[in-house]
Amino acid sequence: MADSNNNNTLKIGLAGFGNVGAGVYKNLLKNGALLRERTGQNLIIHRIVVRDPDKPRDIDLPAGIVSTRLDDLVKDDEIDIVIELIGGTDYAFDLVKSALENGKTVITGNKALLAEHGKELFAIADREKTPIYFEAAVAGGIPIIKTVQESLVGNSIESMAGIINGTSNYILGRMSDAGLAYEEALNEAQQLGYAEADPALDVNGWDAAHKAIILASLSYGSWVRSEDIFVEGIEKISLADIRVASDLGYTIKLLAIIRLDTESGNIEVRVQPSLIPKNHILASVNGVFNAIFVRGDIVGETLFYGSGAGQDPTSSSVISDLADAAAHLGSGAASRTGFVPHGLYGHPLPIDESISQYYLRLSVDDQPGVLARISGILGEHHIGISSMIQPEEHCEGAASIFLMLYFAPFGTMKKAVAQIAELDCIQDEPILMRVESL
Amino acid sequence: MADSNNNNTLKIGLAGFGNVGAGVYKNLLKNGALLRERTGQNLIIHRIVVRDPDKPRDIDLPAGIVSTRLDDLVKDDEIDIVIELIGGTDYAFDLVKSALENGKTVITGNKALLAEHGKELFAIADREKTPIYFEAAVAGGIPIIKTVQESLVGNSIESMAGIINGTSNYILGRMSDAGLAYEEALNEAQQLGYAEADPALDVNGWDAAHKAIILASLSYGSWVRSEDIFVEGIEKISLADIRVASDLGYTIKLLAIIRLDTESGNIEVRVQPSLIPKNHILASVNGVFNAIFVRGDIVGETLFYGSGAGQDPTSSSVISDLADAAAHLGSGAASRTGFVPHGLYGHPLPIDESISQYYLRLSVDDQPGVLARISGILGEHHIGISSMIQPEEHCEGAASIFLMLYFAPFGTMKKAVAQIAELDCIQDEPILMRVESL
Repeated sequence: MADSNNNNTLKIGLAGFGNVGAGVYKNLLKNGALLRERTGQNLIIHRIVVRDPDKPRDIDLPAGIVSTRLDDLVKDDEIDIVIELIGGTDYAFDLVKSALENGKTVITGNKALLAEHGKELFAIADREKTPIYFEAAVAGGIPIIKTVQESLVGNSIESMAGIINGTSNYILGRMSDAGLAYEEALNEAQQLGYAEADPALDVNGWDAAHKAIILASLSYGSWVRSEDIFVEGIEKISLADIRVASDLGYTIKLLAIIRLDTESGNIEVRVQPSLIPKNHILASVNGVFNAIFVRGDIVGETLFYGSGAGQDPTSSSVISDLADAAAHLGSGAASRTGFVPHGLYGHPLPIDESISQYYLRLSVDDQPGVLARISGILGEHHIGISSMIQPEEHCEGAASIFLMLYFAPFGTMKKAVAQIAELDCIQDEPILMRVESL
Repeated sequence: MADSNNNNTLKIGLAGFGNVGAGVYKNLLKNGALLRERTGQNLIIHRIVVRDPDKPRDIDLPAGIVSTRLDDLVKDDEIDIVIELIGGTDYAFDLVKSALENGKTVITGNKALLAEHGKELFAIADREKTPIYFEAAVAGGIPIIKTVQESLVGNSIESMAGIINGTSNYILGRMSDAGLAYEEALNEAQQLGYAEADPALDVNGWDAAHKAIILASLSYGSWVRSEDIFVEGIEKISLADIRVASDLGYTIKLLAIIRLDTESGNIEVRVQPSLIPKNHILASVNGVFNAIFVRGDIVGETLFYGSGAGQDPTSSSVISDLADAAAHLGSGAASRTGFVPHGLYGHPLPIDESISQYYLRLSVDDQPGVLARISGILGEHHIGISSMIQPEEHCEGAASIFLMLYFAPFGTMKKAVAQIAELDCIQDEPILMRVESL
């Protein structure tokens, strides 16, 4: 990769040569000349650490620079920048910590690592005056980290609503467009390589939750703990939900919601399937694409859209971090850790206090008086019904009732639903979703 | 604005206290504490230059720091950063040039200045090793400049399609949603303050063109000249066009198109009303909002959406430039001019060679044989017809014919349309628009 006898040469240690690691290597080669011209820096992959050098790969490992010891990156004085793409939170934590302590700038795409250990790692980065870059950790090719850290630096972030799990978005889209059942859509996503063999983290909301933790932490200046957020997945959504929502003018999306109540200082962070109006720009985010809708107190409404995963988009973000790291290292500046969480602007809102409108699906015995008992319970909790749909088709004495409900605290709503679920006329578990006004 | 006896204090000279200038002042006050915490810098407005200090204003000019001489900014050794928000290309050029030559970092929101004199000003910035920041010059609050300069730095930009004039987008939207005629929608935009008393630059495409010049120049490394781009406005679009386009599954948008043909090295830059598929995410960009759809060779498809104008959104961008300038000045780095046009990656494509599909509206005498003569001319030029619509309603012997045409070079298309226009059965000027596949 060109000669390295150059004052403007920076040497990179790459940990991990999986999908994204190989993409970084491939695209640095592909656009190396462009990048040199734009940055004035020569970015050289000096060493690559992999677990198994003999594993068959789409891109051949470059000869002579491969190692199997992570220490070879950390202890090598020639290496300026360490890119962590090994995943997981054990070896990755040790590597990042040790790289920072050895004065190496770190780039990582590891959302779980930051969501779980961000507080500790950024404290080390701060102490060592060595930056961590992590654009690739959230929403693949979308530059949402730089946008929050730099472009919106003058804004108090009022709220974010993110479609930040492409697998879920693909599944919901296929259920909606092609009328596939949940399991069919999931199988299709797996066959196309959009979902892992074990898709749990995608469909149960926790992949999105890790990203939401990072975005909320950046926005509100303190590391949000995973125990303070509420996470639901898309596993229980049926075709009937999607059709009824559509008839009412809504699309169902798995949304990460981050919101600051400026008066109380409450910070709300949750991941839930939600009904959003079909004419909202987020409703146009289809397939595996991601988007984050951000409302700042000065800038107003903004949206950032792109591929949320994949070798090339994610490596585009790693390379932008490399260029930033190179600009920083090349400038001779003592330190630039960027705008990272380092102060508390609020406190977590208990999920039961979070307020929204709701969608409720109930499977009931098809007999008189059922609706009166349901609306009675809702009335006791002061939850208003804005509309009710009971489709004609029943099957064997069972019917579905779909309710749209006015604003209520989640805790109140859950209590009412639990009471309804205990009625002897209720057959299956009630399905409750948020309706977001955005 | 807090005390300035601080090592981390930067002093700002603000030229212009109009809409955006007042917004910068107001929002620096509003979010000053947040900004200090995030950047570690104290950003102080040290002097404000206005033409008329006695002009009534929504926000009062702060006492004691007002001047009417631009030289007071440039010659004041205490001032680190000059923000140019006076507009125009004469005084503004002199101010920016002189500020750079006096070692002051410059922030400007002046798209016309950069589109016309960018080459010269960036040469001075380069020579003086003093940066120019210009996020506010393109698309208001959308951080598209930083995105292209930094986040997509590893990408060859394949194309951009931008809705970057909010006034035009508002007018087209109202014609489409409310069935208003062009003049009615324009009047409404003026009454709401979305269009200037003289809306020429908005509706004739040149406001968008100035922004397209800046985006193309950043993307392709050389300053694009205004004589090398093709610009058309929305003045001739009728309600009939909007309805027929809608029936065919399209929305009409004023688009800035920027495209690199990697094989030939041709760079295409043009602003034209265009038909885009209704299900494309750009079609969901409504009202005065702006959005830029960017395709990079690594990142793939991305979109950046937000308010393209207005006091608050635009000042959000100015403040992000201030934070960047502060980080740079605070780092002690010798220079960081960012990634700016400094190399030629291609050459302008003559507009006649640019290829697309087309929409053609013709007003014809309602008599037999007309369509045969029209399709004969198109056939001579090897332009295929993909569909033809001739609505039932005619008026006094006149009829409209709407044609969707296959791919053809613009030059060929223009020749064919000119020949058609000379037919004695053609009543009004033919209306030709692009159909963009994006």
